[in-house]
Amino acid sequence: MINIALLGFGVVGGGVADVIMKNNETIARKTGEHIHIKYILDLREFPDHPLGGRVVHDMNTILSDPEVSVVAEMMGGAHPAYDYTRAALEAGKHVVTSNKEVVATFGAELLRIAKEHHVRYLFEASVGGGIPVIRPMSSCLAANELSEVDGILNGTTNYILTQMIRAGKSFEAALAEAQDKGYAERNPAADVEGTDACRKICILAALAFGRLYAPASVHTEGITAVTAEDVADAEAFGGVIKLIGRAGRLNPDDPCSETFLLVSPHVIVHENPLSCVDDVFNAILVRGNAVGDVMFYGRGAGNLPTASAVVADIIDIMTHIEAEIFVPDWESADGAPADFTALPYAFLCRLETVQSYDEACASIRSIWTDAEILTAADVFEGKLSFVTPVTTEKEARCALSSLGTLSAMLRVMP
Amino acid sequence: MINIALLGFGVVGGGVADVIMKNNETIARKTGEHIHIKYILDLREFPDHPLGGRVVHDMNTILSDPEVSVVAEMMGGAHPAYDYTRAALEAGKHVVTSNKEVVATFGAELLRIAKEHHVRYLFEASVGGGIPVIRPMSSCLAANELSEVDGILNGTTNYILTQMIRAGKSFEAALAEAQDKGYAERNPAADVEGTDACRKICILAALAFGRLYAPASVHTEGITAVTAEDVADAEAFGGVIKLIGRAGRLNPDDPCSETFLLVSPHVIVHENPLSCVDDVFNAILVRGNAVGDVMFYGRGAGNLPTASAVVADIIDIMTHIEAEIFVPDWESADGAPADFTALPYAFLCRLETVQSYDEACASIRSIWTDAEILTAADVFEGKLSFVTPVTTEKEARCALSSLGTLSAMLRVMP
Repeated sequence: MINIALLGFGVVGGGVADVIMKNNETIARKTGEHIHIKYILDLREFPDHPLGGRVVHDMNTILSDPEVSVVAEMMGGAHPAYDYTRAALEAGKHVVTSNKEVVATFGAELLRIAKEHHVRYLFEASVGGGIPVIRPMSSCLAANELSEVDGILNGTTNYILTQMIRAGKSFEAALAEAQDKGYAERNPAADVEGTDACRKICILAALAFGRLYAPASVHTEGITAVTAEDVADAEAFGGVIKLIGRAGRLNPDDPCSETFLLVSPHVIVHENPLSCVDDVFNAILVRGNAVGDVMFYGRGAGNLPTASAVVADIIDIMTHIEAEIFVPDWESADGAPADFTALPYAFLCRLETVQSYDEACASIRSIWTDAEILTAADVFEGKLSFVTPVTTEKEARCALSSLGTLSAMLRVMP
Repeated sequence: MINIALLGFGVVGGGVADVIMKNNETIARKTGEHIHIKYILDLREFPDHPLGGRVVHDMNTILSDPEVSVVAEMMGGAHPAYDYTRAALEAGKHVVTSNKEVVATFGAELLRIAKEHHVRYLFEASVGGGIPVIRPMSSCLAANELSEVDGILNGTTNYILTQMIRAGKSFEAALAEAQDKGYAERNPAADVEGTDACRKICILAALAFGRLYAPASVHTEGITAVTAEDVADAEAFGGVIKLIGRAGRLNPDDPCSETFLLVSPHVIVHENPLSCVDDVFNAILVRGNAVGDVMFYGRGAGNLPTASAVVADIIDIMTHIEAEIFVPDWESADGAPADFTALPYAFLCRLETVQSYDEACASIRSIWTDAEILTAADVFEGKLSFVTPVTTEKEARCALSSLGTLSAMLRVMP
């Protein structure tokens, strides 16, 4: 039997308790022992819950109990989650977490502390909910030099965009529906402005490239500016708009080349498997120099999927309890990632113009002879949508500045 | 430094050597040591290959060398691959393999022998090429009771079906194209008749449910009977035809319920993420009681993707060399899996009839009032396509026997 403590008994913490109570026999069959939840740390009491008697309010009760070997942190927020995690690792306890904010901000330091104390700090649940991605990236793809990681990392925004695509809704109407269904919070800023996706791509980039960038240093655009018109233009081009967290090597063939990170809406053509990821589902596409592209898909949030990943990390610890396991070294990056405006991209643009259709087309073709015009002459009403050839954002903005007002400029995923 | 021996220096064996030579520094950075290929066992000589001097022809050279701790078997075929694997495990060497025939036929016995000799038998490369699926299923989803595994497990047949869907080609024309492009062998039987997919679903079912069924005991239909008309009917219904290996619990809510396995073409509706898996790509969808549906996607074959998985298994052994790792127990099933004709399915059927359109529709509706008729009156030429409500194959065949000749009866994936 292994004794664990849960920090936080909200949605995820409650889910972890549910999964352990429901599947403990299955787990024991696979690992040879049961999981015992000895303590639950929360500010509240849960008198009606079957585990209500295990609630404590003082972290020291857990830290000072030598029987507790694993702490599962599901509090959310940076503090006191970080402080408790650090204290648990220093007390020689393994820590597993679903807290992306703590991993994305303090991951490098916490991994170092874990290594110093010969314990593990695992965070499969911090990205993609229950989707196995952290462990497959670090073990199953270990034979590869990775060059890129792209992800649909936020279920709320993907649900909103899917509604805009399928039903032609405005962002505001789709957000209201997502709130009604419980997929979006009353204050949806962390989701729709891309903050949540940004934390996750920082974690994935650190796994892939060994360096953890501060989320604040990463260029992050949410989906609040995406319009039904943009969605229609993307469809005319043969694609869909998705909020993508993207990280990679500026030169994909050079494993020492600088890494870029950004979060922004992208046009994804139908041939890309990420284009099929709809509703609240998430997916992460990883590119390696042996395996090519692999993609991991599933529910990126929810109490039970996230709990599935938290408990998998606990099981990993149970089945390797005597082993000296490899702990990754993450370097903490001081500065910002490589300049994303130097990335090669085609852009889907919409020009607002007083010119005639033919004049506007000619203006665009005077810059790029092979630009793809999306708007047909018979529906032209002073707005001309087109897709540039692959260029860089710097060059595109410079060239387009002479044209007039752009009401859209969306990156097309290469 | 870890010394390994490669058994077989064909496409996969050569790919493993390439990946190790190319990425050995990356591997050493992650594991702390390099991989050294000490021997290559093959009948042939490779005088022009940089590792040609390491070729040996006698397995005993490898077995008797205490420096060799890992053997990578990539010979293909049952014998002598099985015999060498067994001898290596008995000699206290870890074995990793890409050989699905050996795993699907002898996996239960070889895992038992590995356990007895405190070594590991790993086979990530046996299913889905480089796609991480074996390790994620056994570790990342360990907190779940699994109820179903569905896979597009064969790249050749998926390429052929994709060509039939996109270009309206016949099976014969699409097969010829696949052969021209090197995606199908001159003798394509093992692929197009489903044998290859069958071995893989047997391995996945054993992982999910702990019991290995002999591939010969599993109902297996290939794609040779799929026609362009079937493809068009599936499209009219809102789906695509894919060759699916399917395994699950007859009663998904009861972890002790009997398991079914089958391989057959299925109609996959566009809402199912497997419908987006095209060309030579593979994908495996796994259903767990906490995580819900997760899917793993990537290239299911090819020298480097498969080598990526073989080398990942070697790295797994390197990073756990001192640990007593959990080895799954597979029971070897004597009989056949549960009767697949008892599974709930809707069927896409095409009736060849001498009746008028209205009479034929009435005949079908006399059996199922809610059958969905796919053929419009104005294109009816003695053939009426329709989809039954969910029933069982037994009941459907019995009811349909009174109607006349059926030229198609395809399972619709629930």
